Amino acid sequence: MRYELFYWPSIQGRGEFIRLALEEAGADYLDVARERGRGRGVAAMMQLLRGSTLARPPFAPPFLKAGQLLIAQTANILQHLGPRLRLTPQAEASRLWAHQLQLTVEDLIVEVHATHHPLSSDLYYYEQKAAARRRARYFTGQRAPQFLHYFEGMLTGNQTGVAYMLGRRLSYIDLSMFQIVEGLRYAFPKMMARLEPEVPALIELHARIAQRPNIAAYLASPRRIPFNEDDIFRHYPELEKGRS
Amino acid sequence: MRYELFYWPSIQGRGEFIRLALEEAGADYLDVARERGRGRGVAAMMQLLRGSTLARPPFAPPFLKAGQLLIAQTANILQHLGPRLRLTPQAEASRLWAHQLQLTVEDLIVEVHATHHPLSSDLYYYEQKAAARRRARYFTGQRAPQFLHYFEGMLTGNQTGVAYMLGRRLSYIDLSMFQIVEGLRYAFPKMMARLEPEVPALIELHARIAQRPNIAAYLASPRRIPFNEDDIFRHYPELEKGRS
Repeated sequence: MRYELFYWPSIQGRGEFIRLALEEAGADYLDVARERGRGRGVAAMMQLLRGSTLARPPFAPPFLKAGQLLIAQTANILQHLGPRLRLTPQAEASRLWAHQLQLTVEDLIVEVHATHHPLSSDLYYYEQKAAARRRARYFTGQRAPQFLHYFEGMLTGNQTGVAYMLGRRLSYIDLSMFQIVEGLRYAFPKMMARLEPEVPALIELHARIAQRPNIAAYLASPRRIPFNEDDIFRHYPELEKGRS
Repeated sequence: MRYELFYWPSIQGRGEFIRLALEEAGADYLDVARERGRGRGVAAMMQLLRGSTLARPPFAPPFLKAGQLLIAQTANILQHLGPRLRLTPQAEASRLWAHQLQLTVEDLIVEVHATHHPLSSDLYYYEQKAAARRRARYFTGQRAPQFLHYFEGMLTGNQTGVAYMLGRRLSYIDLSMFQIVEGLRYAFPKMMARLEPEVPALIELHARIAQRPNIAAYLASPRRIPFNEDDIFRHYPELEKGRS
C-alpha cells in the first residue's frame, strides 16, 4: 500500500515521528504537502483539514491516508502503523506500553513547543520572549531531566538485558527516542551537554538508530528537513543563557 | 473484573474522563488513592509511580490496573476500556476515530491547564498571573472556540442524523464532551455564555449525558469531586475580566 502523509512541508515537527517510522520500514509513502501537482501540495492538505469534503476531518496535521482510512494524531497514526510496518511487538501489553510511551513523548513535545510559545501560538516568539525565558528555565532545569531520566530508566530497567525501549526488538518508540535526543541537542545544546552523561543508554540508543541503514540514508537525503526556527525544536541561545 | 484506578484523590483532573466511563458502564472499580487501608491511598499510588516495584512504571497519573495490565495515559486507558465497557463501536475505523477525538480532548485539556500555569507548574498561579491573563485571552478568544466548533461539527456533520459523536450509539467520547462543557462552564462562564449559542448540538448532548441514570447518580454522589482551584478547570474570574 502507498501511504499518504499530510504534514507541513517545511518543518520536521510532529510529522517527523511518522516519517522516521515509514523510512525505517522502507514503506512506500507520499509526503503529500511536499509534492507538486494535482491533489498535492499544502492546498490539498488544507482542503482535507477544512473538512468540506470529509465527514470526519482531522483537527490538525499530521494525518495519514491508509487505504480507506484517514487517521490523525501522531501517536494514533504510529499505533496503527506499528504492526503493519513491523515496528511494534504483537503482545497486547507491549502494544499498550509502546503507545503509552509515545503519548509521553507527545507530552514532552508540547512542553518543548511551550518554551518558545508559552503565551500564544498567535504571537511571534519575539513578542513573548520574557515569558519564554521563564518557561525554558523550567523546562531545561526540571521537565526535560524528568522525561529523559524516565526514558533512560526504561532502557536500563528492562529485564531482557538489551538494547531497545521495549526489549529485544526495535519498535517505533526507539525512533521517537532518536528524534527527541536529536531535537533537544539542536534546541538546547548546553542543557544536553550537562544531561547526556546522566542518560548514557539513551544516548547510545540514539547513536545506534542513526546508523541503521534506512535511517542513515534518510538523514543524508533531501527528504530530511533541516531543523529551523519555524519548527518545534528551535535554537534560541538566549533561552539557555547562563546555564551550562 | 475489578478495575483499580490510580489518580489524585482531591481533583477531577484527567482521571475524571476514566471515572465517567467506569460509572456510565456500572463497572466495578476502586479509586485507589481515595481509599484507606493497606495498599491504598496516595502512598500506594506514589509507590507504583516511583517505580521501584515496576519494570514499566507510568510517567504520571492517571493509570489503571486491569488484571495483569497496568495502563497509563488517559486516552490509552479509555481506548483499552472502550470495547470492554461497551463504550466504543467495533469497527476499526470507528475505534481509531474515537481515540483520535479523545487525543484532541487531551490537547484541549493541556491548553486549559496552561491558562493558569503558562510558565511553570512549579510556581503558584499567583506567581504567574500576568502571563496567565495573556494565555487565557488567547484560549477564550481563539483556541476554545476552535475546539468547540470542531466538536460541534462532528455532531451536526455526521450522516446518521443523530445523537452521539460517533453516530447512533453512545461512546466514551460523548462522556468526554460532557466533561469538557461542564469544566469550561465552571472555569470560563462568561466565555461559555457567549459560545454556547454557537454550539447548540454539543450543549444538547451535554444535557442528555447529565440525565443518563448512572451519570446522574454519580454526579449526585460523593464520588464526584467538586471542581476546585487545585484542579485543571479553575475559576479565576480575573482570567476573563472584561470579556462577555
